[in-house]
Amino acid sequence: MEVQQVLHMNWGNGETSYASNSNLQKLVITKAKSMVIESISDLYTTNFPRCLRIADLGCSSGPNTLLVISEIIEAIDETCHQLKRNTPEFQVFLNDLPSNDFNNIFKTLPAFYKQLKEEKGEKFGPCSITGLPGSFYDRLFPSSSIDFHHSSYSVHWLSQVPITVESNKRNIYLARTSPPSVLKAYLEQFQKDFSLFLSLRFEEITPGGRMVITMLGRRSEDPFGKEGYFWELLSKSLNDLVSEGLIEEAQVDSFNLPFYMPSRKEVEDVVCAEGSFYLDQLDIFDVNWDGSDDDDNKGFMFDRFISGKKVAKCIRAVAEPLIACHFGDAIIDILFSRYMEYVSEHLSKEEGKFVNFVISLRGK
Amino acid sequence: MEVQQVLHMNWGNGETSYASNSNLQKLVITKAKSMVIESISDLYTTNFPRCLRIADLGCSSGPNTLLVISEIIEAIDETCHQLKRNTPEFQVFLNDLPSNDFNNIFKTLPAFYKQLKEEKGEKFGPCSITGLPGSFYDRLFPSSSIDFHHSSYSVHWLSQVPITVESNKRNIYLARTSPPSVLKAYLEQFQKDFSLFLSLRFEEITPGGRMVITMLGRRSEDPFGKEGYFWELLSKSLNDLVSEGLIEEAQVDSFNLPFYMPSRKEVEDVVCAEGSFYLDQLDIFDVNWDGSDDDDNKGFMFDRFISGKKVAKCIRAVAEPLIACHFGDAIIDILFSRYMEYVSEHLSKEEGKFVNFVISLRGK
Repeated sequence: MEVQQVLHMNWGNGETSYASNSNLQKLVITKAKSMVIESISDLYTTNFPRCLRIADLGCSSGPNTLLVISEIIEAIDETCHQLKRNTPEFQVFLNDLPSNDFNNIFKTLPAFYKQLKEEKGEKFGPCSITGLPGSFYDRLFPSSSIDFHHSSYSVHWLSQVPITVESNKRNIYLARTSPPSVLKAYLEQFQKDFSLFLSLRFEEITPGGRMVITMLGRRSEDPFGKEGYFWELLSKSLNDLVSEGLIEEAQVDSFNLPFYMPSRKEVEDVVCAEGSFYLDQLDIFDVNWDGSDDDDNKGFMFDRFISGKKVAKCIRAVAEPLIACHFGDAIIDILFSRYMEYVSEHLSKEEGKFVNFVISLRGK
Repeated sequence: MEVQQVLHMNWGNGETSYASNSNLQKLVITKAKSMVIESISDLYTTNFPRCLRIADLGCSSGPNTLLVISEIIEAIDETCHQLKRNTPEFQVFLNDLPSNDFNNIFKTLPAFYKQLKEEKGEKFGPCSITGLPGSFYDRLFPSSSIDFHHSSYSVHWLSQVPITVESNKRNIYLARTSPPSVLKAYLEQFQKDFSLFLSLRFEEITPGGRMVITMLGRRSEDPFGKEGYFWELLSKSLNDLVSEGLIEEAQVDSFNLPFYMPSRKEVEDVVCAEGSFYLDQLDIFDVNWDGSDDDDNKGFMFDRFISGKKVAKCIRAVAEPLIACHFGDAIIDILFSRYMEYVSEHLSKEEGKFVNFVISLRGK
């Protein structure tokens, strides 16, 4: 089955939903905020468009979906106050794959608009928020129609599982035991996808338009570095289920994640080779696997069991549809319970960090 | 509770869903097609916009949702072939209230795009289809951003239940026994809502932009004419349930539909008084209550039971959320079973016709 038909965050608002398990993504948005605001404020004060057209690519469905949009509106409103200008109109396109739970976003909009009116007054807006289902590896928008593209925690998802000639035996992502041909297939798929992503967005962006992307990446050039270890622990959990006869070894061997964490250089090389955008800035920051932030939590008492549970719930909310589609629903509870144990064990010995890139781009 | 929070067509694809019971609305779209195509073709060949921006207001969720859009794309593609031009880009906004089942629409889009590509070739488009939740009695779009507004079977829904000083006793819509003050309240609510609708759309429409509205109406100036008889039969069914002790009389007395079927003159008067649009054309046509078309069914054997069932399912798919919100879910099955009997009985004695207006407007 195609990735586009399966990949989506867990629906609804229940215990295993993405909406209830997206604190990590919220923290990442908060830490990337300054670069987003700087980029869009710069865009706005250069062109002063009557209407700001903004796309959020891979918006998901939960409390974070409208977070970036709120931050942007707040910042532009503040800028307009300082400059004694009327605020522009806003047209927002929330994009995700067609299997995303858009109904869940849409039902929160009346309260969102009500709050905007209360805070900003009747003269504010109009602010028009739309949902646009589709893959960002296809054209999404008419030519020259978007001022600002934003994407958080989405571009590390590939358009498809890399096609490998050799089996990535017992692994679901790149690991030390992966054959070199598998690494090559992953890197090439990332290069192809990211290059396509940039060229499509360039066709859609207005002259002078901007783009800010936040995505997972690697600090080192080593493709098997510890950044991918959270997936290795999931491979390990799956292999346990093989030993216990709950799934077949061949099922694990034939499953690879459509996912890639590039190095800084790999990102820069694609931006340079594709050639549509200037890379204005690329910042790197870490967050803990459990979504806690060392900067904000100096007095925090670490509990490996609580952290392990948080990590397992977060990864489940993100990866359950892909895994359930391949291995069936029946193993999900036991798999993530095992995963939680491995994560807790790992965190008792060493830190688990996600490495994040915030990339600010400007159309040439 | 506000109308906007309750009014929506029945979700999903099941037996009582709107998706499975919208043949009537399909027939109406088919019969209004020529005026829609004439209007948008005229718009396109006057301005030749690089991108055609189209809004469908009250798009619902079912097989009809993409029908008008398909017809428009087909017609513009045909025109471009004749004129040896490239087709424009398309940006489509499907609008309905936030409680509409947008997920159900969105999951059909990949197949829709695939078919477009197969039929029109890779060079066609891009065609970007978005969902825009919100009431069309509010601003929906940025200023001057829509070339063509379309709305089928939606503008007869009012923004709220008219506020009446006297009770519309035992009726849920206008009937011969309704007090004159209730009639006045209904007419004034329609005038206020339709006028607001026109002024909002005018702000959103591009210079030279067009709008085509299809809605239920009355042939005569008599506000209690037989056009509203399908609602009278629903009142009668509800009053039966009062007699049987299943609901309270006060519940029926306090329930009025947020709905109005204007006469031609009432429509023309609002368009003229509001002043933003030229009324290019207003056509009137009938369709049978059961969604059959006399023009196409000369040899058709009428069966009042089959017809009664179709009418009951159609009205249930449209009105169930409003009725269930007021009277509770428990009475729905018995109510529409009774309604089906009354409709069948009525159709054995005389015809049941919906009177439809197709209104073509041009921004001044």
